[in-house]
Amino acid sequence: MSDIKINITLPDGSVKSMHKGATGMDVALSISEGLARNVLAAEVDGEIWDANRPINDDATVSLLTWQNEGGKSTFWHSSAHLMAEALEALYPGIKLGIGPAIEGGFYYDIDFGDHTFDSENLDVLENKMLELAREKNEYVRKDISKADAVAYFKEKGDEYKLDLLEGLEDGTITFYEQGNFTDLCRGPHIPNTGFIKAVKVLNVAGAYWRGDEKNKQLTRLYAVSFPKQKELKEHLELLEEAKKRDHRKLGKELELFTFSEKVGQGLPLWLPKGTMLRERLEQFMRKAQIKAGYSPVITPHIGNKELYVTSGHYEKYGEDSFQPIATPHEGEEFFLKPMNCPHHCEIYKSKPHSYKDLPIRFAEFGTVYRYEQSGELHGLTRVRGFTQDDAHIFCTPDQVKEEFTKVIDLVLYTFKALGFEDYTAQISLRDPENKAKYIGSDENWEKAERAIVEAAEEKGLNTVTEYGEAAFYGPKLDFMVKDALRRSWQLGTIQVDYNLPERFELEYIGADNARHRPVMLHRAPFGSLERFVAVLTEHCGGNYPLWLTPDQIAVLPISEKYADYAQEVFSLMEENDIRGFIDHRDEKIGRKIRDAETKKIPFMLIVGEKEQEDGKVSARRHGEGDLGSFSQQEFIELFRKAATI
Amino acid sequence: MSDIKINITLPDGSVKSMHKGATGMDVALSISEGLARNVLAAEVDGEIWDANRPINDDATVSLLTWQNEGGKSTFWHSSAHLMAEALEALYPGIKLGIGPAIEGGFYYDIDFGDHTFDSENLDVLENKMLELAREKNEYVRKDISKADAVAYFKEKGDEYKLDLLEGLEDGTITFYEQGNFTDLCRGPHIPNTGFIKAVKVLNVAGAYWRGDEKNKQLTRLYAVSFPKQKELKEHLELLEEAKKRDHRKLGKELELFTFSEKVGQGLPLWLPKGTMLRERLEQFMRKAQIKAGYSPVITPHIGNKELYVTSGHYEKYGEDSFQPIATPHEGEEFFLKPMNCPHHCEIYKSKPHSYKDLPIRFAEFGTVYRYEQSGELHGLTRVRGFTQDDAHIFCTPDQVKEEFTKVIDLVLYTFKALGFEDYTAQISLRDPENKAKYIGSDENWEKAERAIVEAAEEKGLNTVTEYGEAAFYGPKLDFMVKDALRRSWQLGTIQVDYNLPERFELEYIGADNARHRPVMLHRAPFGSLERFVAVLTEHCGGNYPLWLTPDQIAVLPISEKYADYAQEVFSLMEENDIRGFIDHRDEKIGRKIRDAETKKIPFMLIVGEKEQEDGKVSARRHGEGDLGSFSQQEFIELFRKAATI
Repeated sequence: MSDIKINITLPDGSVKSMHKGATGMDVALSISEGLARNVLAAEVDGEIWDANRPINDDATVSLLTWQNEGGKSTFWHSSAHLMAEALEALYPGIKLGIGPAIEGGFYYDIDFGDHTFDSENLDVLENKMLELAREKNEYVRKDISKADAVAYFKEKGDEYKLDLLEGLEDGTITFYEQGNFTDLCRGPHIPNTGFIKAVKVLNVAGAYWRGDEKNKQLTRLYAVSFPKQKELKEHLELLEEAKKRDHRKLGKELELFTFSEKVGQGLPLWLPKGTMLRERLEQFMRKAQIKAGYSPVITPHIGNKELYVTSGHYEKYGEDSFQPIATPHEGEEFFLKPMNCPHHCEIYKSKPHSYKDLPIRFAEFGTVYRYEQSGELHGLTRVRGFTQDDAHIFCTPDQVKEEFTKVIDLVLYTFKALGFEDYTAQISLRDPENKAKYIGSDENWEKAERAIVEAAEEKGLNTVTEYGEAAFYGPKLDFMVKDALRRSWQLGTIQVDYNLPERFELEYIGADNARHRPVMLHRAPFGSLERFVAVLTEHCGGNYPLWLTPDQIAVLPISEKYADYAQEVFSLMEENDIRGFIDHRDEKIGRKIRDAETKKIPFMLIVGEKEQEDGKVSARRHGEGDLGSFSQQEFIELFRKAATI
Repeated sequence: MSDIKINITLPDGSVKSMHKGATGMDVALSISEGLARNVLAAEVDGEIWDANRPINDDATVSLLTWQNEGGKSTFWHSSAHLMAEALEALYPGIKLGIGPAIEGGFYYDIDFGDHTFDSENLDVLENKMLELAREKNEYVRKDISKADAVAYFKEKGDEYKLDLLEGLEDGTITFYEQGNFTDLCRGPHIPNTGFIKAVKVLNVAGAYWRGDEKNKQLTRLYAVSFPKQKELKEHLELLEEAKKRDHRKLGKELELFTFSEKVGQGLPLWLPKGTMLRERLEQFMRKAQIKAGYSPVITPHIGNKELYVTSGHYEKYGEDSFQPIATPHEGEEFFLKPMNCPHHCEIYKSKPHSYKDLPIRFAEFGTVYRYEQSGELHGLTRVRGFTQDDAHIFCTPDQVKEEFTKVIDLVLYTFKALGFEDYTAQISLRDPENKAKYIGSDENWEKAERAIVEAAEEKGLNTVTEYGEAAFYGPKLDFMVKDALRRSWQLGTIQVDYNLPERFELEYIGADNARHRPVMLHRAPFGSLERFVAVLTEHCGGNYPLWLTPDQIAVLPISEKYADYAQEVFSLMEENDIRGFIDHRDEKIGRKIRDAETKKIPFMLIVGEKEQEDGKVSARRHGEGDLGSFSQQEFIELFRKAATI
């Protein structure tokens, strides 16, 4: 070890003096052995390194464990190498494509050649991996010349790695070795295979080499691994639950939405029950927004080219977008609107404003269209047309904090009403080193950034601050929400914008009688109604809050004889804004209850002879069972309590 | 007069035997002299003829007076000739373009050559016309050869008539003469100029010859004429009132909507007050529809080309339309949707249906886009994007009558709630002579036509039946509504459709367990929300029904001292769903009242010292004045009564 000292700055700001050539693992050991046992990799000046790679200069270092996204992805990348080693042991002579970490695990693309992969007995592969893992083989990084690398894979006869090598420059190539396995790899990796304690192969699929269908189809093995067996078990349970809750599956079962080839991919058709759900969400937000002083507006779904030249979007349209809509009038072109803000700027401009009118808050459930590759489309979460619960607030720089605070209130009210309890606020500010690249005055930026930070603090939000993550036109705050399956979703962005007011030359007359530029805030608590319904559906597994669910009750007459009484009960419910249906089918009551349970109807009201005589209903709650007998009025009260937002 | 007899069938079905060569006027005289005095023209076998043109074969004849649209337009066409005669007398040597009857009068396009038209003293022209009218010159029809016609206008030196002649075939050309004036004209005309008793020149504008801006600009004189002076006076009063009520003017004053060059012509931006109005209309219709068993759905604003190939709209797209939207994916093209029905057919198709599920009623406030030439655009009545209160009913042939009846109920409920009291139903049926040109079985057509006629009858509608006016795909019923200015608007069409179910291969399983095609009904009580708001605004002059109007009350504190009490009053109103605003401006109460009157706020609640002490409000009603003093609760009751639909 060298005598020369370097300074290692840790995330808490403390500085450690270490020998030149010390590794991340050395840094961990200098803190505690417990930490060292858990260190998977180290982030050195923003780049992830092997924990055992020597650090030769002063650096900012943060140690990555399973708790960090960077630690996790390194772990899974190393697991992919382990899987490749196991596969080579089981199927000698196979050729390897690529094997990256992905969200929720890793995969490796394999050309099995003359072998056939035994997809019936995945435990053979899993056990082989665990056997090799127990050897605690170190992942060793090796710089290698391109010529040597080519020679290695030529000898091995692996055309895919040779294909990959073609694109690489000499002097930048590294190999990683562990046990009997060597791979062309940029790294980083975990210290040794011993960290990998649990493995599950999840899926076997086909994948064209380099994603090109003209190339050979390889076998893609998806898998996931963990440092503890218990974590794998929990993960598999969550996966099982996620499958059950998949909004595409529930959307079909609950008849919320559908797609049609003829209408077009990624363009949802909202079925009656889904429309009911969506319109109730809209109504919820509309009411909350009107109470918060928003003015609803309605604008068209297209805009003239001029609008987007002014807004600056025009230059961003490319071959990947929906193309312009020509008209009989030469040179007159329209675009499907990709966002609502330019239209709202034109409404702001339609009359002069005084500072006394501000803030002005235009709200619109605005449907926008953005082209996505068909391969990227996914249920309601990734679509080509979606409706934002959009609004734009035009205010003075001094009003930013109050407006920000009010929007946070609205977002939190929304989360509460929809049952999202676990969230953090991510605040994106300027890069303090490079203030020049942002539009808007330094004074306004400082004011706005302070406003956001203070507003978040006063609301007691759990925040993460990211410097340099602000857009060039303003700082923002994103809510990151954890759902019931512990997955993170970005919901509810609040964005400050100095750019559009400038481009549209928006003005107000100040108290000083001079013209000023307003500040603009973009915000959408749901984000998109499509995506929100998807997230909410998976979060609650289709058991929506009572106030929101399409059918709140099902009245179940025991037989046809009680049809009239069922109608009487149902009519009273309708008069009291309790919505649902009567199951008039000629079926046994048991079947009617089972079907209502499948449809996740919150309350079932069973009516037969006794109920009719006493003017009562027998109530059942979905998933809970029998609640007992109630007079109609008693049930209405019980329902009202349960339906309170 | 010939001895040969012909049979003249009159509209009431009676048959008159007349001499061959008898004229419409002869038929009138054979009925009564009073009728003959009023006959302007005759409709002979569906074609309008001069009242003095001989009829040589058996024919169906109806006599046209000022009460018939055909009589009116003949009258105005003849008035255009009279105006041309007067102009030639006043400005010798002028050249004439065309001079047709139009809605609300007529015009003539004139090339004044070296003359300058005296637009300051229009009475000179009007008086000249009346002077010539008093001569009671007959309009005389003359068949003429093309060569003679050309020679006539060559001599006269009228290049425009020569241009018109170029397009005409020999043997089809007629002249009409009255007094000193001869015109190339197809006719028909009224018997003589004496019928014209009142004339008003309304407007002087420029118009390119044949509407082509490369041609010379002529002077277009718009005018209107009447058989009685009194009718002209009433007409001018209505025109004056229509100007005041013009929805473009009121839309600006009441801040309902605006347009932006950048967003694009014909694409309205709904301002907050207009949005409030529109959303209340939507909410009204949504509630009524849900009560009537409709299921709201939501579909995208674009559709893949395939959808429109299936629906048959694709072949109708032309150069006059919004052009298709290309995408990065080769061959994948989208269209802005011109209507919602194809999308709804795809929703119907998304699952199998039994006859027990029918009728199914999909409702959507669907925004559609249709390209209109910029010259055709007009406020909210003629736009490029509009939202239909659309719905499609899928039912069995046996259900058509009941569904039709229910839609009529809904339309009548709508008219009543919005204050339209004067309407007729126009029923469009097949041409009984040419049944082959219609799609759908004879049996179904008969069933549907009978259903419509019976439904209209049972509802006591005032109907007009037009044979041969049905679309090729089904019969329909249109409501023609007269507004407060006695103008007719087509609102609320109910259309039977056998075509789309066929093209989309829609099916249901009948009680016989076999597959059947459902019948589809299209219907939209408002038609388009844009156009409806325009019509309603002009109908009520901006004084909307209380339940609908954007601001229902204005609370007017006499001074700042009563701001808190004003707020207390306003909050109670808001809690009771009474909407409006507080006028907190530092203005005199008289000014505040005047401004609220200008904004047509139905109720003003004035609060000062006395009101605060007694916990009362002083109420004023727009256009009515002081109502007296009320406790807050008393006012709420008074308001509720007034706001009942």
